[in-house]
Amino acid sequence: MSAPNIETIVSLAKRRGFVFPASEIYGGLGSSWDYGSLGVELANNIKQSWWRWLVHERDDIEGLDSSIIQNRLVWKYSGHEATFSDPLVDCRTCKGRFRLDKLQDVNCPKDNAHHAGSGKECDLTEPREFNLMFRTTVGAVSSDEDESALAYLRPETAQGIFINFGNVLNTSRRKLPFGIAQIGKAFRNEVTPGNFIFRTREFEQMEMEYFCRPEDAPRIHQEFIDGFLEWFDSLGISRENLKLYEQSPEELAHYAQRTVDILYRYFPERDDEDKQFDELMGIANRTDFDLRTHSKKPEDREGKRLNSDSTDDLSYFDPATNERFYPYVIEPAAGVNRTILAVLMDAYTEKTNEKGEVRVILKLKPELAPIKVAVLPLAKNKPEIVALAKQLKKDLLPAMRTVYDDTGGIGKLYARQDEIGTPFCVTVDHESLEDNAVTVRDRDTWAQERVSISELKKYLQERLSK
Amino acid sequence: MSAPNIETIVSLAKRRGFVFPASEIYGGLGSSWDYGSLGVELANNIKQSWWRWLVHERDDIEGLDSSIIQNRLVWKYSGHEATFSDPLVDCRTCKGRFRLDKLQDVNCPKDNAHHAGSGKECDLTEPREFNLMFRTTVGAVSSDEDESALAYLRPETAQGIFINFGNVLNTSRRKLPFGIAQIGKAFRNEVTPGNFIFRTREFEQMEMEYFCRPEDAPRIHQEFIDGFLEWFDSLGISRENLKLYEQSPEELAHYAQRTVDILYRYFPERDDEDKQFDELMGIANRTDFDLRTHSKKPEDREGKRLNSDSTDDLSYFDPATNERFYPYVIEPAAGVNRTILAVLMDAYTEKTNEKGEVRVILKLKPELAPIKVAVLPLAKNKPEIVALAKQLKKDLLPAMRTVYDDTGGIGKLYARQDEIGTPFCVTVDHESLEDNAVTVRDRDTWAQERVSISELKKYLQERLSK
Repeated sequence: MSAPNIETIVSLAKRRGFVFPASEIYGGLGSSWDYGSLGVELANNIKQSWWRWLVHERDDIEGLDSSIIQNRLVWKYSGHEATFSDPLVDCRTCKGRFRLDKLQDVNCPKDNAHHAGSGKECDLTEPREFNLMFRTTVGAVSSDEDESALAYLRPETAQGIFINFGNVLNTSRRKLPFGIAQIGKAFRNEVTPGNFIFRTREFEQMEMEYFCRPEDAPRIHQEFIDGFLEWFDSLGISRENLKLYEQSPEELAHYAQRTVDILYRYFPERDDEDKQFDELMGIANRTDFDLRTHSKKPEDREGKRLNSDSTDDLSYFDPATNERFYPYVIEPAAGVNRTILAVLMDAYTEKTNEKGEVRVILKLKPELAPIKVAVLPLAKNKPEIVALAKQLKKDLLPAMRTVYDDTGGIGKLYARQDEIGTPFCVTVDHESLEDNAVTVRDRDTWAQERVSISELKKYLQERLSK
Repeated sequence: MSAPNIETIVSLAKRRGFVFPASEIYGGLGSSWDYGSLGVELANNIKQSWWRWLVHERDDIEGLDSSIIQNRLVWKYSGHEATFSDPLVDCRTCKGRFRLDKLQDVNCPKDNAHHAGSGKECDLTEPREFNLMFRTTVGAVSSDEDESALAYLRPETAQGIFINFGNVLNTSRRKLPFGIAQIGKAFRNEVTPGNFIFRTREFEQMEMEYFCRPEDAPRIHQEFIDGFLEWFDSLGISRENLKLYEQSPEELAHYAQRTVDILYRYFPERDDEDKQFDELMGIANRTDFDLRTHSKKPEDREGKRLNSDSTDDLSYFDPATNERFYPYVIEPAAGVNRTILAVLMDAYTEKTNEKGEVRVILKLKPELAPIKVAVLPLAKNKPEIVALAKQLKKDLLPAMRTVYDDTGGIGKLYARQDEIGTPFCVTVDHESLEDNAVTVRDRDTWAQERVSISELKKYLQERLSK
């Protein structure tokens, strides 16, 4: 099973310290979230899984970590300054501000009725474009109006990769095809953020740009679509909750030749099955738009756009064929936060115990679980038991994230670990002092097994790697 | 030995892909840097070492990842909005803008001579305060001037910890003393950034706030000072290049009772030994200022400051003593980028080979090395050798970061791996196909040893863990 709706996860996340509302003591800040002790570990495990799979295990991808604030010209030539915007309308009657393309979904703030843009009293302005990039000012200038110091918070990590294409090519001695991968924060000044961590103004991306010969792009594109379905499977996300969506020609970004989104069933409570799914990641064939546009005085495909600001030509010379050309780019772009939400929803399970009480189990894959093993003393007032439990925690830790917990009775401690997805509990009891063995309890089956302390680490390692 | 100056590291970092100037193809963006393939791995290894040491190995520290953009009230009550500023003066003659407290260090932009603020023609304005926080605007407001939507990029990660104190306390069931640790980006609109990655406007912090009873604070403070000296030692930084600096009463922040900085010898080329050192990290006793100031209507120690905006009281109730009080905070705050710079400088070594040529070796601790092992085929045109080398890379990878490299002759490949700090090279040659053994070469001694393939992983693991 999986979570019946996002609200179930919001409640669990707050209660157990995965995610808190940001600035909560000051009334929050519109759909902004902080990650608690368990949330940051889950996020790190997802990011490390992505990085290991793409950068470490493959032989053809380099890592990168570029700045959030770049020269404004990056966003001029990427096209974001001119076109990365939503059309907004204002209502002269209720003073509300709405996205023109979402008018049917919003409530009129005057009486909270569902007739924005169609209510009798509504008096809407002409739409105007609202750029989604956050603006700021760099350096000690006199005023925020000083255009020379204007800068943006990056709305995507991808451009940091394109502008470093030449640097990476030179220092890594790569030949096509190869990729550059980056994980980092991005910011979009969304008019209507919402649905917990699904759409937030500050978020984290895992983007990879894979550079190849134009004729290889369609095949490589398909390989990454298939590959990412396998990656999500490795994270424990059920295939039945994922769906591929092929963008129509009208939906495609102007630079894209083909884009396939991987959707997740974030809204299982909705009647219309199509509306149950929303975007988890996108995989685009961006053609040679990006390297062309950032190159010194290139012509674009229509021969129109010039770039007199760039100091570099980002074309590639292939010594085998003696050709110079702009590589095509395949871009798998995933959101860390949306992946966290999908992983949590998919892992959520309820189970009824022998007393008829409903318990929550978070069936996270061991690789993603914030804590792999919890060592629990059965009697907290017996120093030998506590000492042995703490020693076991220390011994296991270098090999697997282990915690020691004695802040409750054993039933409560088990329930708590189930709810945060800890695959195994190790209980130290009075007999442990005699038989040098402990009880290992399985999160998913609640089955218990007696394991010799000398075998414990190997036993857990084997079961965690399954 | 260590690097003779920062410039040596700038050059190595650019040449080998540790660090590139940000937005380089657009002329850069004043002291802003992007991290290449090796830089991001080094940074990740440093961050993981810090996190493992504090959050995973200890039993008393929780992790956190809070938002960069928080409610503006956070920065009002932290004091940053009113006081986090530098005094600036303008020169009416040369149009330069200078920090009042650094006037003696800057050059007049008119003739680039060293007489700012003291030249005959200089005509300086009265100083005015320039706030170091980057400003931005959240949501679809009409203008950047709309104060209701004003927000800041956080100038430190610490405040995200203080405002979540209650959330972490409730979900973790912690009792004093305990800490909350966070790694993340912070932004300061420095008037004069510089010295490579030493002072940048966008940077990354590793901050931990340790909450304790007031009377325990001085002892715990000293323990963390000693502890961090050991941590830097574990990163391979020589003790002789570190110095403790006790801030004088005049230098202390208004909330701090005692602050000790750990300095690193970033400028060994300077004659005056005192000027060779600059701040690597600071360890402060912040008293109960932070939890008090963010609490609903508290009085500060002078009984003056009220907070009617906060919805929470961040005091702590101690059930053992039946007391309620505001915990004291010990804050060890380190910069990721300054740690990277110190690690690179300290690892930098030159060695003369038998031909009398000077070679660079980066003697990084194995834990920090971006790549632990490079597998190199001696003959790239022999498919069996290439296949075996690639297979060895795959076999070693899950246990240690391994790369395969065949982009040069063996001498060049060794030199390249030395320069990026790879502890071991494994060479596959013609004989390997017969004797199932490979040559393992040590980065620091250049000594070579023949090792059986079946023993290779164990052999390398043991030597890497030393």
